[in-house]
Amino acid sequence: MANITKISPLAPASFPDLPAIKGARFATVEAGVRYAGRTDVMLAVLDPGTTIAGVFTRSSTRAAPVLDCQTKLGGAPDQSAAILVNSGNANAFTGKHGVASVKAITQAVAQATGTPEGRVFTSSTGVIGEALPHDRVVAKLDALNSSLSETAIEAAAQAIMTTDTFAKGAKASVTIDGQTVNIAGIAKGSGMIAPDMATMLVYVFTDAVYDQGKLQTLVAGLSDKTFNCITVDSDTSTSDSLLMAATGASRVDATGNGDFADALHAVMQDLAHQVVKDGEGATKFVEIAVTGATSDKDAHTHAMAIANSPLVKTAIAGEDPNWGRVVMAVGKSGAPADRDTLSIWFGDVLVADKGWVSPDYVEADAAALMKEQDIKVTVDIGMGDGSATVWTCDLTHGYIEINADYRS
Amino acid sequence: MANITKISPLAPASFPDLPAIKGARFATVEAGVRYAGRTDVMLAVLDPGTTIAGVFTRSSTRAAPVLDCQTKLGGAPDQSAAILVNSGNANAFTGKHGVASVKAITQAVAQATGTPEGRVFTSSTGVIGEALPHDRVVAKLDALNSSLSETAIEAAAQAIMTTDTFAKGAKASVTIDGQTVNIAGIAKGSGMIAPDMATMLVYVFTDAVYDQGKLQTLVAGLSDKTFNCITVDSDTSTSDSLLMAATGASRVDATGNGDFADALHAVMQDLAHQVVKDGEGATKFVEIAVTGATSDKDAHTHAMAIANSPLVKTAIAGEDPNWGRVVMAVGKSGAPADRDTLSIWFGDVLVADKGWVSPDYVEADAAALMKEQDIKVTVDIGMGDGSATVWTCDLTHGYIEINADYRS
Repeated sequence: MANITKISPLAPASFPDLPAIKGARFATVEAGVRYAGRTDVMLAVLDPGTTIAGVFTRSSTRAAPVLDCQTKLGGAPDQSAAILVNSGNANAFTGKHGVASVKAITQAVAQATGTPEGRVFTSSTGVIGEALPHDRVVAKLDALNSSLSETAIEAAAQAIMTTDTFAKGAKASVTIDGQTVNIAGIAKGSGMIAPDMATMLVYVFTDAVYDQGKLQTLVAGLSDKTFNCITVDSDTSTSDSLLMAATGASRVDATGNGDFADALHAVMQDLAHQVVKDGEGATKFVEIAVTGATSDKDAHTHAMAIANSPLVKTAIAGEDPNWGRVVMAVGKSGAPADRDTLSIWFGDVLVADKGWVSPDYVEADAAALMKEQDIKVTVDIGMGDGSATVWTCDLTHGYIEINADYRS
Repeated sequence: MANITKISPLAPASFPDLPAIKGARFATVEAGVRYAGRTDVMLAVLDPGTTIAGVFTRSSTRAAPVLDCQTKLGGAPDQSAAILVNSGNANAFTGKHGVASVKAITQAVAQATGTPEGRVFTSSTGVIGEALPHDRVVAKLDALNSSLSETAIEAAAQAIMTTDTFAKGAKASVTIDGQTVNIAGIAKGSGMIAPDMATMLVYVFTDAVYDQGKLQTLVAGLSDKTFNCITVDSDTSTSDSLLMAATGASRVDATGNGDFADALHAVMQDLAHQVVKDGEGATKFVEIAVTGATSDKDAHTHAMAIANSPLVKTAIAGEDPNWGRVVMAVGKSGAPADRDTLSIWFGDVLVADKGWVSPDYVEADAAALMKEQDIKVTVDIGMGDGSATVWTCDLTHGYIEINADYRS
């Protein structure tokens, strides 16, 4: 693994002060799965009554823990639940051994925490194709269970990191009928990020009461607007997982509440943006907004084609307002476009107006904008009402450094 | 534009000694379109009777010269024909100005060479979105026309280069009924290369007689097996064009001849491989062969997903036999795959056998292979009979250097 020592220049100043979520307790440990001298396993135990929703990678080579989680969604929430995550080894493409590792871990977690095995969810992140030394995880379960704490969520965010250069957290609180409910989320992910949930693990907790089926619908819909709208390198992981747990410990029912949905959206968007801001080698945070497409889906297709274009991403790294590459990306996306109705802005600067460079365009204006850390590119297709916004980062030497030397 | 001084380490030792093609004459000139101190315009004039076929980018933001060429295919071959190409400016996304530039150039070529305007084909390659100073080209037409020569094809290959680090040529000869016909082709292209003919210009000439309609079918079919099977960075240009001219000057009819088709295939594949070998920053030439897919189309989808994956390409740059990333790319491709029937070879080394690391695999064997300049990755999906082979290069610091500083 490359030796990542430099924190992303786009990192937030500090990890947020996440609220304790009643009904959710956390613990971490150094199990030595792969890394030495750092925590690499986190356990979350959730009180009986917790409803759980999940969204997972659509890769056809999904890892064993993902397949196991998918079978467990929708179980009755009457008993406790647990989430165990290890970093360093993805337990992906490990055949029968992978399935056996998941079984060994979920059984051990169930036993240590008194949770039914059908309510034990696991994730693994790290190298693909090597057997997970699950005994190292199992050996630590009693220690984990005996150190559970409502305040250890920041430590949990640290334990799940791989090539991440900073731990990721976000929070919100909502007042419903005069009572406050809290939301706290953590995430990991820095490369192999693209729609379908890329190498990203996300865990969001709330003390609100939320109907399990409706929570699943809410979380899936918000994922499409947040985690499925980010890309670092177009690559998609075999292990991406988002789990949302509503403990209900506040006794305040948020089911169907619009303010709660907005707050959860904000938390998920914040975490998604933090993943992009930790994109391998990233020096710029880039928002791509597409309007005027023939449908929202076509707008998303155009936006992702721009966001995934190596030529667009290297131009942004070079602080070059190279709008010709944006035209190229729209042209190759496969969604309908018409060269002569296409307009492009960098920030507020109209660069291309209906198929030709704007008469008022002064390259120095756009070039100055490109020196900012946050870049916004807006494209109007000029054909319809479809729109979409996605987020990405630039493509730099740092990406090559990290990925040409990850495993050797 | 970045200052490219280093020739690709994958370049052939020298430009091939291309045969003169009777009925085809070439000239080049320094027109100062954008570059100084080098030729940047080439003219080819083809004798009456020449049949012409063409394949073009499918980008929805195609450049004006491409749109013009597409309208001209299929014209009667009784009179002479001409091909004019400039480098330095792509005349793409230039609106009405772009159309006017094409008109000005084709009219001037027609006048200077005595060719009907409907048989004058043009291509432009270089920066997008800036007006083509076509007067500079027009001013050189008489000089070009008066210096036409059957032996200037290598000079033509040089005049059309942009970020190319070497001129690209290939040849073949075929004996038909005891008589020899020759094929000679030139190409340019080094980045923005992906299916749909990316930033690639290709011109192939033969002195064989070939029925125009059947030539179009032959060339389109061979493009799908050659130029549409290469990728440097997944980006697709607005200007890609392949033109094939059969002058018929040998009076030998090659229409439907299998040896001729094989020879043309070899020339087109050689040129396609040279484009990959000049991929921006390339240090490795990579063949991806997929077998056992549910169809040839699905095999191609898997192969391109592997070939376009930044994580696979950086692993190859780092000489890391990271087959986990190959699994990841297959998983995200969208074509059917089953983790437990998937096998992967690096060169002849079986790395993964039906969903799990091969028991005989020794990483040192694969690691040694990765140090070679030519890398072959074979993936058997294990589900059907579909197969496909594509070619790409690695993703290195050189790519970032070239593309983060192309236009500023």
